[in-house]
Amino acid sequence: MSLAKSSTFQLEEETQWEDQGAGIQRQVFGYDDKIMLAKARFEKGAVGTLHSHPHVQVCYVRGGVFEVTIGSEKQVIKDGDGFYVPPNIMHGVVCLEAGTLIDAFSPMREDFL
Amino acid sequence: MSLAKSSTFQLEEETQWEDQGAGIQRQVFGYDDKIMLAKARFEKGAVGTLHSHPHVQVCYVRGGVFEVTIGSEKQVIKDGDGFYVPPNIMHGVVCLEAGTLIDAFSPMREDFL
Repeated sequence: MSLAKSSTFQLEEETQWEDQGAGIQRQVFGYDDKIMLAKARFEKGAVGTLHSHPHVQVCYVRGGVFEVTIGSEKQVIKDGDGFYVPPNIMHGVVCLEAGTLIDAFSPMREDFL
Repeated sequence: MSLAKSSTFQLEEETQWEDQGAGIQRQVFGYDDKIMLAKARFEKGAVGTLHSHPHVQVCYVRGGVFEVTIGSEKQVIKDGDGFYVPPNIMHGVVCLEAGTLIDAFSPMREDFL
């Protein structure tokens, strides 16, 4: 089991935005081995390409408009909305208006550290 | 093991705000047995009283200003910031300016359904 653990508090202004390329930046927030919260900031037109992972994922849309594909479902959602991705299901987003996705994963995304 | 699972998409305008009393309202968003995302909307002055639970919790602050106590730590955080609560650690918030906490828990909060 991982003993990794975040600080208790995360401040946006003091946390590095990691450039993921293609108009996407990430901030990793609170986590331990069981859960992780991360922000993904998208420029208009940026594409989170279809992918899958064994982690379950829930998301909250903080600003912007996104076309979200999860398995065989596709929907345009906006600021204040959210989605759920079961483990190992292909999913991806297209950013129609700039915004940020607040993602939570279980277990943690070790690949984000 | 619970077989409970949310819909794939959650729309803010179509999801009920559950009144928790004392100036706090909740929307439950994506979940399965391993994780749950929920929003807690606070009026200015509302108090999330000190409590603890076995679930690990991560939070993102969507608007507003909150004084957050986690174990022996206390900090004022605002829109865009976040925090991490280990299992079984006492924590609570005081809302200094109206806003919404985006909370994720692992495992899910069965008591929220």
